[in-house]
Amino acid sequence: MKCTREIEVRDLEEVAINIDPIQAGGRLTADAMKAIIAWGDGYSVCDNCRKPFRLDQIKKPPLDTFHRELAAFVGMDQARVMPGARRGFQAVADTYVEKGSPVLLTALSHYTGFLAVEAAGGIPREIPKDGGNRITAGAAAARIEEVTKEFGRPPALLFIDHFDYQFGNEHEVREIAREARKYDVKVLYNGAYTVGIMPVNGKDFGVDFVVGSGHKSMASPAPSGVLATTSEHAKDLFRTTQAKGDVTGRAFGVKEVELLGCTLMGATIMGMMASFPHVRERVSRWQEELANGRMVIDALRSIEGTKVLSEYPRKHTLTRVDTRDSFDRVAQTHKKRGYFFTSALGERGIGGVIPGATRVWKFNTYGLTKRQCEYLASAFRDRERDSGQLRPQPRPATSLSFSPSRSTRMPRRRA
Amino acid sequence: MKCTREIEVRDLEEVAINIDPIQAGGRLTADAMKAIIAWGDGYSVCDNCRKPFRLDQIKKPPLDTFHRELAAFVGMDQARVMPGARRGFQAVADTYVEKGSPVLLTALSHYTGFLAVEAAGGIPREIPKDGGNRITAGAAAARIEEVTKEFGRPPALLFIDHFDYQFGNEHEVREIAREARKYDVKVLYNGAYTVGIMPVNGKDFGVDFVVGSGHKSMASPAPSGVLATTSEHAKDLFRTTQAKGDVTGRAFGVKEVELLGCTLMGATIMGMMASFPHVRERVSRWQEELANGRMVIDALRSIEGTKVLSEYPRKHTLTRVDTRDSFDRVAQTHKKRGYFFTSALGERGIGGVIPGATRVWKFNTYGLTKRQCEYLASAFRDRERDSGQLRPQPRPATSLSFSPSRSTRMPRRRA
Repeated sequence: MKCTREIEVRDLEEVAINIDPIQAGGRLTADAMKAIIAWGDGYSVCDNCRKPFRLDQIKKPPLDTFHRELAAFVGMDQARVMPGARRGFQAVADTYVEKGSPVLLTALSHYTGFLAVEAAGGIPREIPKDGGNRITAGAAAARIEEVTKEFGRPPALLFIDHFDYQFGNEHEVREIAREARKYDVKVLYNGAYTVGIMPVNGKDFGVDFVVGSGHKSMASPAPSGVLATTSEHAKDLFRTTQAKGDVTGRAFGVKEVELLGCTLMGATIMGMMASFPHVRERVSRWQEELANGRMVIDALRSIEGTKVLSEYPRKHTLTRVDTRDSFDRVAQTHKKRGYFFTSALGERGIGGVIPGATRVWKFNTYGLTKRQCEYLASAFRDRERDSGQLRPQPRPATSLSFSPSRSTRMPRRRA
Repeated sequence: MKCTREIEVRDLEEVAINIDPIQAGGRLTADAMKAIIAWGDGYSVCDNCRKPFRLDQIKKPPLDTFHRELAAFVGMDQARVMPGARRGFQAVADTYVEKGSPVLLTALSHYTGFLAVEAAGGIPREIPKDGGNRITAGAAAARIEEVTKEFGRPPALLFIDHFDYQFGNEHEVREIAREARKYDVKVLYNGAYTVGIMPVNGKDFGVDFVVGSGHKSMASPAPSGVLATTSEHAKDLFRTTQAKGDVTGRAFGVKEVELLGCTLMGATIMGMMASFPHVRERVSRWQEELANGRMVIDALRSIEGTKVLSEYPRKHTLTRVDTRDSFDRVAQTHKKRGYFFTSALGERGIGGVIPGATRVWKFNTYGLTKRQCEYLASAFRDRERDSGQLRPQPRPATSLSFSPSRSTRMPRRRA
């Protein structure tokens, strides 16, 4: 099916249970879908932009209220919307990192943090992970001291993921923030995998900046995200322009430098805003999400040779598994090679695993219903049972011809 | 009508002829609307992201082809999509402007250019406009010399709007680029009001960078835009990351620093791409757009006391008018004060003028049909005739109860 002459309709979420690791929290709610249809035009939200002419001050649609609620939602004083979490990292790095300044990230940090530091001219240094792939306060404190010695000044900034993108492991945010404070190091909380799917309170964690991703975890169109901070730091981070036209004498009012003025002027912010009531409510269901995910993890663990590389028991729905001694052994003799696995999943109505992946891969059950997770678990278990010693089957058994019911297929519309 | 419990449906484009100055080129095409519905989910375009894992290399949907066509469309060698033209300015400024470096903008430059320079630590200097509100090559050359004397080095960059946002006047891009080249000053062509509505060829102009806005002129959702350059500059502007994890030894592949990796991962790029065939075609109709606009301008000029502040005859559909001696005189005694004007326009099915504006204001007829422009012209003329000496009318005359026909009301769907 085509949505234009050249563009296929994307129907992954409609025809399959999607366990892609990065897409789970960014599926639009039905309300977001309606909002982007009604507000899709370029500068749509500017219809009623009045003095002082800034996105976060627009009253109709109520972007001003949305900004205040967004700040409260992440437990900070002020919030702004950004074109992705990465642009939030950039704004913080540009504000606080001088050329040549050291900045701490971690051994599990996302590449966008490194790029933001690089763009600001900072020197990235990593906090090592421990044997369990976790970042501890002890390691952070040790690295702050080392870096301070190396550069003759403490790091300008410390990035910490609450849950990282590689393992979905939880890190000692609160304790790290406490250590950082002793050394007067500012802390950026990367909530790309938390803000919008579980409760987050930045002040409670003791961090200086909270960054979240709209398209990763807030059921919003890309690029979108949130950057929040305390009243104290808002003065610097959200500073207004001092630029002047030397010939005309023009000044540029209350436009904020790091935001370059307004950021998300149409479909993106309206999608965020329409999903927000659902997002605010769904974070309270995080324990159910974990319970659903656990069924799938347990099914995978029951397959001989399959290892869960993420911390266990799981505290996040994003999980990294090692199937080199299970599915990859099948791949070695299967006529489809590594593709047998995604192909078999596809036959079962399961999508979102990179074709050919049979060794180390990630999946995310966030947002799936209990029934979908039961099905996923049984699909993995069936696979094992049907294939004996995990050998390929010439054709799918009856149990594999499962066709997901309508309600199962469309979890995205449940909000 | 509501699209969620709290969000009104936006229907400005459906119920009125919208002459808002900044929204005209950003109305979605029907194909863009379809694409954002099918691809609205956060990271939707990442389904088939494979090595080397970068947005502009994705083959399905064909983002790779789209990027190549985009570069050709603006007459440059390489193009990237950005979250708005302003993020294109930022990428160029961050790459070429050192702290304390002078940068030339013009007396008519948009604030986002100043903010991009400020964020990069540059010192903005303006090229003055001439008596006709135009930026000439002579003024540019003179200012390059002055600034070079003042700072002991030439400007790091020169921003030039092909058409500016204040008057919609055309500036001497080609001649300015020629002068700049003599002094070895790089030129950024700001095509926010050109790329996507009229033909633009960056190499033909002799500029180094072409920046366009998706939501302003390419019938795309916000925030979106294009940043294009020559092969020569692509090496610097689109440089890939050199950052390394000092503990893990990680490197980050081909991710581009100024883009922070990927930029528009879902609805925004798919909206741009779906509109692109229409945008590429519509630029060839620019002369018709000007002819349509001229009818409206002529009607306004026929009203005693109304002055066109933009250059005349018009070379752009964005126009600034001064109605202090016409509509504003009515406002002085009208019971609705300045609101009489937008109220009268509203009664005639015309929207997009800031409520209360009767003195100096802007409008844009881009994308309206000939019939809509005829109607607009007659609405302005009627207003004059009905009101005698431009005095308020107690109630609208018959001719004012015009109800636009379906085809008139929905120009956005004509593509």
